Amino acid sequence: MGYRYPSYETLKTFCHDVFRTFGFTEEETGIISEVLLRADLYGIESHGMQRMVRYHKGIENGLIKVDAKPQTVFETPVTAVIDGREGMGQLIGHAAMRKAIEKAKTNGVGIVSVRNSNHFGIAGYYAEMASREGLIGFACTNSEAIMVPTYARLAMLGSNPIAVSMPAEPYPFLFDASTTVVTRGKLEIYNKLSKPLPEGWALDENGNACTDAERVLKNIVAKAGGGIMPLGGNTETLGGHKGYGYGMLCEIFCSIFSGGLTSNHTHTGGKGGTCHGFMAINPEVFGDADAMKERFSTFLQELRDAPKAEGQPRIYTHGEKEIFAYADRMKNGIDVNINTVAEMKNLCDYLGLDSVKYLGNVDFSEAKQSSYK
Amino acid sequence: MGYRYPSYETLKTFCHDVFRTFGFTEEETGIISEVLLRADLYGIESHGMQRMVRYHKGIENGLIKVDAKPQTVFETPVTAVIDGREGMGQLIGHAAMRKAIEKAKTNGVGIVSVRNSNHFGIAGYYAEMASREGLIGFACTNSEAIMVPTYARLAMLGSNPIAVSMPAEPYPFLFDASTTVVTRGKLEIYNKLSKPLPEGWALDENGNACTDAERVLKNIVAKAGGGIMPLGGNTETLGGHKGYGYGMLCEIFCSIFSGGLTSNHTHTGGKGGTCHGFMAINPEVFGDADAMKERFSTFLQELRDAPKAEGQPRIYTHGEKEIFAYADRMKNGIDVNINTVAEMKNLCDYLGLDSVKYLGNVDFSEAKQSSYK
Repeated sequence: MGYRYPSYETLKTFCHDVFRTFGFTEEETGIISEVLLRADLYGIESHGMQRMVRYHKGIENGLIKVDAKPQTVFETPVTAVIDGREGMGQLIGHAAMRKAIEKAKTNGVGIVSVRNSNHFGIAGYYAEMASREGLIGFACTNSEAIMVPTYARLAMLGSNPIAVSMPAEPYPFLFDASTTVVTRGKLEIYNKLSKPLPEGWALDENGNACTDAERVLKNIVAKAGGGIMPLGGNTETLGGHKGYGYGMLCEIFCSIFSGGLTSNHTHTGGKGGTCHGFMAINPEVFGDADAMKERFSTFLQELRDAPKAEGQPRIYTHGEKEIFAYADRMKNGIDVNINTVAEMKNLCDYLGLDSVKYLGNVDFSEAKQSSYK
Repeated sequence: MGYRYPSYETLKTFCHDVFRTFGFTEEETGIISEVLLRADLYGIESHGMQRMVRYHKGIENGLIKVDAKPQTVFETPVTAVIDGREGMGQLIGHAAMRKAIEKAKTNGVGIVSVRNSNHFGIAGYYAEMASREGLIGFACTNSEAIMVPTYARLAMLGSNPIAVSMPAEPYPFLFDASTTVVTRGKLEIYNKLSKPLPEGWALDENGNACTDAERVLKNIVAKAGGGIMPLGGNTETLGGHKGYGYGMLCEIFCSIFSGGLTSNHTHTGGKGGTCHGFMAINPEVFGDADAMKERFSTFLQELRDAPKAEGQPRIYTHGEKEIFAYADRMKNGIDVNINTVAEMKNLCDYLGLDSVKYLGNVDFSEAKQSSYK
């Protein structure tokens, strides 16, 4: 698949013009653009420009309400419940994590649970909001059901990612991963490339292992059965019940605490209803924050310095790959595949923006129909 | 392997007499016995009577100090750090979770991190202490290093289980699982049966996949390389970096918050140094606790009622298997394998207790040398 490499500044201008045209304020546009572009800068291609179509469709069909302002419906010194009122997930997520951070700074811990939101981008962005301010940050979200619980044949939980970030030197720890074996985005990439899925990823409509990406994706959309396996696979031998358990932990912080929709009920009846969970912890509530950062940094370095498996050049700690991708993309431009570029051009045409300004004159002969359409 | 089925009451008396003889008070003995027997009642054979030898050895060689009282060394309204002073893990864990529960009842959330402890039994016991009082409970612990991080060949993290429990009807949710594919106890069982390990569980001293249980266990003890894979395996294809990430999350709440030893430094130089993490959350800080319990119960029932995979009779929610095992063992006696019975007899002989009183006259011709000796 062909790629283009627009600069961060160019894509920032593109996002700015798009979201301003959709009707978001200057400040809101800045937040949405930053969350989306952080995904691309971190090399998480599935959650950046590739998702523009989904946000566009969401706004167009009323799933995402541009004017909605999140509302705090319950609050204590250490917790809050926020009703997102079907607004843009990034704005709701940002406001909720800010609240968790303020509570953690004042009272040591802040937990904020959110209902009636929409897709909020990468969970890691919100966890990092906390670690950038010296706190430990946690963020998770439910989503349209794609995870098939152990021994079931219908998807009942979302990809349900859990992200954790904590200050460290020379860079923060950032763990951000779905509780499924892989995300739906990975299946979409295999589908676009017409490649069979690796064994151990997906299930067909009868709950049996399946390597046909197109069939699995169609079934997920139609809620016809099948989906993605929990981390650990579809049996207990390799711990599939554990991935299913982490998915439940995510659901507790998102839909159960907030009183919103569990994954199996989101995206039904013309409503999104996505729920999120956020937590921030101030390291000072355990003593000397600098000492904690130092001992954590030491442990991370010990992990990187540990003896490597035969044939392996390095051991990563979580967040390193993102740091390296960020540096590369800031210098060399952001990888955007030609199908996504085509979608971005369509979006410009739809909004009356001049696509050449952001994308140049692109030959789209390589592009094929996006799976989102 | 042969089994005996002593009653709960008999084993309670056995534990009582053993721990009283070791020098624990009546109250302490009650707590330790309850944690250990809960594991056996839940069908988690690896963490009940089978572990008596390890506690015995720990007390004998000074790793576990019978007279040590845990000391709170830092405290805020929502958090505490406890120094276990090398005492019995169950007593330290119980005291720490009680503190987390009291903080959650008063201030909404309680997080307690513990250093200088010892093996505390099943993490789920402590999580359930909270759910039995209407709260959401979390418990985790690090341990002697057995998890090999992605692309490494030396174990650097422990089995690092994370347990979550939350009130629900008809019974509470209880998720309790190591962040490795399996626990060391599973390898010990395969070793006792001289069976090859399933693919995807363990690594040899060079970091390559290995199905030889004896070799892996010997290497772990000798810290010679190899160990157990993280949940998700030893590559990123099936998400091994995710299991490694959950192991890190556990380490943050245990060793990093408390300032204790990370797993790779525990059990060196004649010190245990195990660290634990506990959190309790009061559901009332998110609104109506009864309504939360009801919606969570509904979701759990929806999961159980979901369409089953071809050939599968039922879908479990976490904690169900334990509930069923508990009912069975309370009625029919607790499964104790003959090797463990032999170890219990040895312990009686060592302490000058009459083993026939607890175990009857057992023919030990089936028993083979325990892997702990």
